Order: sequence, then C-alpha cells, then structure tokens
Amino acid sequence: MSDKNFMNMCFDLAQKSWGEVSPNPYVGAVIVKDGEIVSTGYHKGPGLAHAELDAINNADQDLEGATIFCNLEPCCHTNKRTPPCAQRIIKEKFKKVVIANLDPNPLVAGNGVKLMQEAGIEVVNGVLKEKGELLNEVFFKHIQKELPFVHLKWAQTLDGKIAAKNYTSKWITSDRARAHVHHERMAHDAILVGASTVKKDNPSLTVREGDKVVKSIKRIVVASKDDFDKGLKFFSDHHCSDSILVLPEGVQTEANVEVVNCKTNDNGKIDLIDMLKKLHQLGIYSVYVEGGHAILTQFLKEKIYDRVSVFIAPKIIGEGLSPLGDIGIHDMKDALCLLDSKVELLGDNIYLTSRGGACSQD
Amino acid sequence: MSDKNFMNMCFDLAQKSWGEVSPNPYVGAVIVKDGEIVSTGYHKGPGLAHAELDAINNADQDLEGATIFCNLEPCCHTNKRTPPCAQRIIKEKFKKVVIANLDPNPLVAGNGVKLMQEAGIEVVNGVLKEKGELLNEVFFKHIQKELPFVHLKWAQTLDGKIAAKNYTSKWITSDRARAHVHHERMAHDAILVGASTVKKDNPSLTVREGDKVVKSIKRIVVASKDDFDKGLKFFSDHHCSDSILVLPEGVQTEANVEVVNCKTNDNGKIDLIDMLKKLHQLGIYSVYVEGGHAILTQFLKEKIYDRVSVFIAPKIIGEGLSPLGDIGIHDMKDALCLLDSKVELLGDNIYLTSRGGACSQD
Repeated sequence: MSDKNFMNMCFDLAQKSWGEVSPNPYVGAVIVKDGEIVSTGYHKGPGLAHAELDAINNADQDLEGATIFCNLEPCCHTNKRTPPCAQRIIKEKFKKVVIANLDPNPLVAGNGVKLMQEAGIEVVNGVLKEKGELLNEVFFKHIQKELPFVHLKWAQTLDGKIAAKNYTSKWITSDRARAHVHHERMAHDAILVGASTVKKDNPSLTVREGDKVVKSIKRIVVASKDDFDKGLKFFSDHHCSDSILVLPEGVQTEANVEVVNCKTNDNGKIDLIDMLKKLHQLGIYSVYVEGGHAILTQFLKEKIYDRVSVFIAPKIIGEGLSPLGDIGIHDMKDALCLLDSKVELLGDNIYLTSRGGACSQD
Repeated sequence: MSDKNFMNMCFDLAQKSWGEVSPNPYVGAVIVKDGEIVSTGYHKGPGLAHAELDAINNADQDLEGATIFCNLEPCCHTNKRTPPCAQRIIKEKFKKVVIANLDPNPLVAGNGVKLMQEAGIEVVNGVLKEKGELLNEVFFKHIQKELPFVHLKWAQTLDGKIAAKNYTSKWITSDRARAHVHHERMAHDAILVGASTVKKDNPSLTVREGDKVVKSIKRIVVASKDDFDKGLKFFSDHHCSDSILVLPEGVQTEANVEVVNCKTNDNGKIDLIDMLKKLHQLGIYSVYVEGGHAILTQFLKEKIYDRVSVFIAPKIIGEGLSPLGDIGIHDMKDALCLLDSKVELLGDNIYLTSRGGACSQD
C-alpha cells in the first residue's frame, strides 16, 4: 500500500465520527510496522483521545521504528483536555510520521512537525493535502477566519423551482434525498433559515432519522422584525432551547428563545457578516442555510458562502418560485462558477455539492 | 455468456450506426455456434443489409444448428429493398433465434417469428425487451403512432436559468456538453426551435464536430408570422435547403425555404399535433426541440413529448430566464414526474435524460 492508500484509510476512519467532533477536526490515524497495519484510531469527539493516541492505545505491540499516518499534524500544545500527541509519538520512538495537513491552529501550525523532526523522526507532509482540507473545511474556516462555515442548500425541480405557483414545496425530493439532508444537518452546528420559511412551512429544523430526533443542533431564524405566530414549532416545541432568533439591533421579542441582535444594512436587512461573527462567538462554527429564496439570494449576492449544495428531482413544474432572485449578475459570462462539484445520485434525485472557492468571501 | 450478454452485444453493435439508420430501426446480430461467437453484424442504413443478413454474410462456416441473437424480430415482408431475413434464417438451418422485440411494423408484427417457428426453429422473444424498446424508441413511435418522436432539450444554470437577465446564454454549458448536443442532433431527423430563438441567437442548427458539418438534417422554425430578417443563417446559409418554416395556414413568405402551413389554436399558436402529422408525412420521424422558453412551454403544457433532456452547468446566475413558463401546474403534488431518468456527467456538467412515459401524449 502507498502513502496515499494509508492516508485514504485515515480519512475513512476520521469520518466515523461524522457530526460528533465540532469544534475539533476530523482525524484518523493508521500505524504501520514492517509493511503491516498494527492498529488504527480516530478522534471520537471533544475531550476524547486524539486519533494518534487512539491508534497508539489500540496497538498491542512495541511501536519503535513504526510509521504513523495521520491526516492532521500531531498537536504539541498543552492547554487542552488531551495530552500533546507529538511528545507521545517521540516517546514511542516512531521512525516516521506521514500527514496530509499542518494544523492551522496557531498553537500548532508546524510546531508539532518541528518538535518531531528535532527528535530525529522523518516527517512527510502534504499527502492528499487537498482531500484533507476538504474533509476539515469547517475546522479550517473556523480556525483561519474566525467565522462559521456557510453551507447553502436548496432542493429544486429539474426546471429550477423551489416551490410551485401556490408556494407548495412538499415534497420536491425523494425520501432518500431528504434523509441525506438530515445526514448533512448532523455535520453542522446550526441550521439557518429566513423568516418567510418559518412562517410558510413551520419546519421542525431538527436532525432526524425517520421520526426520531438524533442530535440537538442550534436552529437559527433571521428576521428583520418579530411578527411571528409564537405557536410555530421554532418558538414552542420541545427543542426551543436550541432556537436562536436573529433580529436587528434594538428590536426586542417576548418569545422564549435566545435572541442575537445584529447590525443591519442600508436596506434594513441583517448584516450577514456581523451575524456570522456573533454566531461564531456563541460557538457556532458551521451553519447549514436551508432557504428560502430571500436569504439564499442575500448570501449569494454578498458572496458569503463556502459550499453550495442543490438537490434536483426529475420533476417539471413550469412557473413557480426560483431558488434565487437578483444576485447582481446581468450577463451569462459573469455567472458564478462553482468549484470542485461533486455529483451523487440519490435514487432518481441528483445531489450536487460544490465549494464556494474563489467566489466565496474568503 | 448468457442470452442477456449476447443481446447486449446486439445493442452495442446496433449503435455503431448511430444517426445513420432513419427511418429504419437500430439492429445488431450475433451468431453463436457450440458456445462460440461465429460472427456479428449490424444494420448500416436504409437499403443496406439487415443485421441478421450482415452477420450471416460475415460468417465463414456452415451455420446449421447455430443460434442467432438479434434485437429485433427478423423480417418476413418482401416489399422493400432487402430480402426477408426470416426465410434466410430458415434456409441456413439455424436451430434457435433469440430476439428482444417483435417488429412493430404491421407487415411483420410476429409473422417473422411465426414463419420461423413453423419451420421448426426455436424462438425466444423478449430478452431485454425494455432496453430494446429504448434503443428503438424513435422507430417504435414512428411505426406505432405515425408521429415523429419528440425530444425536448434545454441547457440551464444550476439555479435553473436558460439565459441571463440581458438574455445572453453563451455559453452556459461546457465544450464537452455542447459536443454531446451535436451527438444527439445526429440521431434525429430534424432540429426544431421557436421564432424567438432564431431571431435572438441566429443559430446554425447544423450537426457539427468541431467546426465541420458532419450530417445534413432538417432544421425547423415554428412561427406565428413571417417577420424574420432574411439575412439570418436559417434563411441564407449553405444549408437552407434543409430549412423548414412552419407558419399558420394562409400565411405566405417570400423566403427561399420550404414552408409547412399548419392549423392554429385559439390563441394563434401553431397546432403542434397538426404540425407533427405534417412533418411525419414529410419523412421526419424525430424532432429535437432545442427551445426556447415559449416553444418548450407549449410542448410541455400540451404534454407532447417522448423524451426530455437537460444539461446543467455548475453555475449560478440568480434572476434570468426560466426554461419554462406556465404549463398549467399550480401545486407541487401535480408536478410532471419524468420516468427512467439517466444521469451522465460530462466533465463538470450534468446531463439528465428521461422518457416522457405516462406524461406523454402516448
């Protein structure tokens, strides 16, 4: 097996903790000695062993002279709940360390590598680097920009409508596509929607498998005023301790939910960057923006997005509601080009997910 | 190899004549004796040998006791340029014939099978029947309905727009996707567009590989009046002997192109069924409808389509021209559901093609 094969194993191991590691990164580790895999490990969540340590703990033999593959640079800082991995790797007398990415955390950022190299360990950095960055795109955004990762998502008919003429939208996509939405929700710290979506659809905005809520994540509604029926699920169901209402500065509400007051733009809309900064301060490092039309349009117009995902059902509706309004583009040659699109078939539904890339606020 | 494997070989052989057989069907044949493939053949076009005969001619040994696989029932009628295949199969003393579909031509329609069975040959019918019907969907439509096969096609941005706010549409899709359009054009007897498309885009409507025109097919423009600039390519280029202008009954033109006058609906639009009947009488058995918005909307609203194909580029434009207008659907639950969607990736562009199925005028 090549370094790339072992690194791909690390990526697969890392994703066993899908939706459980925030605010930490996804990390997997594979220990190889004399060409044989000795043990594997992965990070299972905050406060639990790092992947390297997990793999070391899982080994039932002496590791002197072994190689450890790990998609993220082993840590060297001590101001956290788990002991530094670089020191442990030195102590175990590993011969070689292979990583995909340096840890962007300024407390590590190459210092883990340096520490190990100074101890005489060979370090290979950058194996499947881009794939590693993709796996930890939320973590990198959070650490490097101190802003939540913004993932825009909508579901449309083949002819590009998110609702019919009478505003019905249930259901455009298949059961399987909707199950995938819940799988994606799980990987984010919050779901975010605009006021109209809450008023029209009264959505649960929970992470479910079948009818069962399987994870608590924050649910955020962005509004320019508080004119909501407080009987809506967002304000009244069992999960309203997860509800965050974003309102303009100075606007109060009597609703029994957390309120984040934000600056507004000239047109009275919430200033998205101010909002994202405040959400980041609240420990929300990724938001899954699920519509509707107005809020998706605002994010895209202001080029604030890291990932765009679209579910497309093989249905035709004709006139109806388009996913987006005016995003300031008038000519086809100026269209936003999404990067690194990945297309997946979910039964007869198409799922396209794409990085914001150069178009993003990054 | 199983019967299905051999039949799939027939389908592959048949498609070697892509775009060359109209008005005939795509047919391939494989001859097997003692478990070995003795020879193969396929129909290369009107006036040329049928697939069975081609395979027989290609064999360099006695065929007594052999099995012939052929996706379409061997013919038994004599009012055509090529001799009947069923008789030849009997003469060669084949033991067994395996087919996917009966020939829908009322001159054959089971009579070929009957003739061979009466001569003591074992006939297996219906192997990969649906796949065979799909391969020859144009031929089946032409024979069974005496109407051209209608294939609707458009190209859109990810957010479902066929043009930007300023009506520009060059280019939504990639080179590779556009090359695929020409590959599809080749398999049709005519390209059909609405008047606005010709006026706005002045398209060539030819079948090209690179810059080279590789096949002459008819090009049809549907208009409610003749107010065209006669300098447009449709009226003036080297291919205008292929141009057909569809106009309402009684409307004349001085343009030097063929004119087909058709009935109109109450709203003054061309009656599509009347038009299709007249095109069929002209020997046009398939039309590739490439837009724009108005004509696509009319075909879909009147549920006149056998196949719908959409190219989707990973681009976002916001406001712009939707592929379709009002097709009489007001609620999402009434959306037209396309059947048997096939999705293909052409680089980073998505190509979805789907049968009209139950929604079609069939």
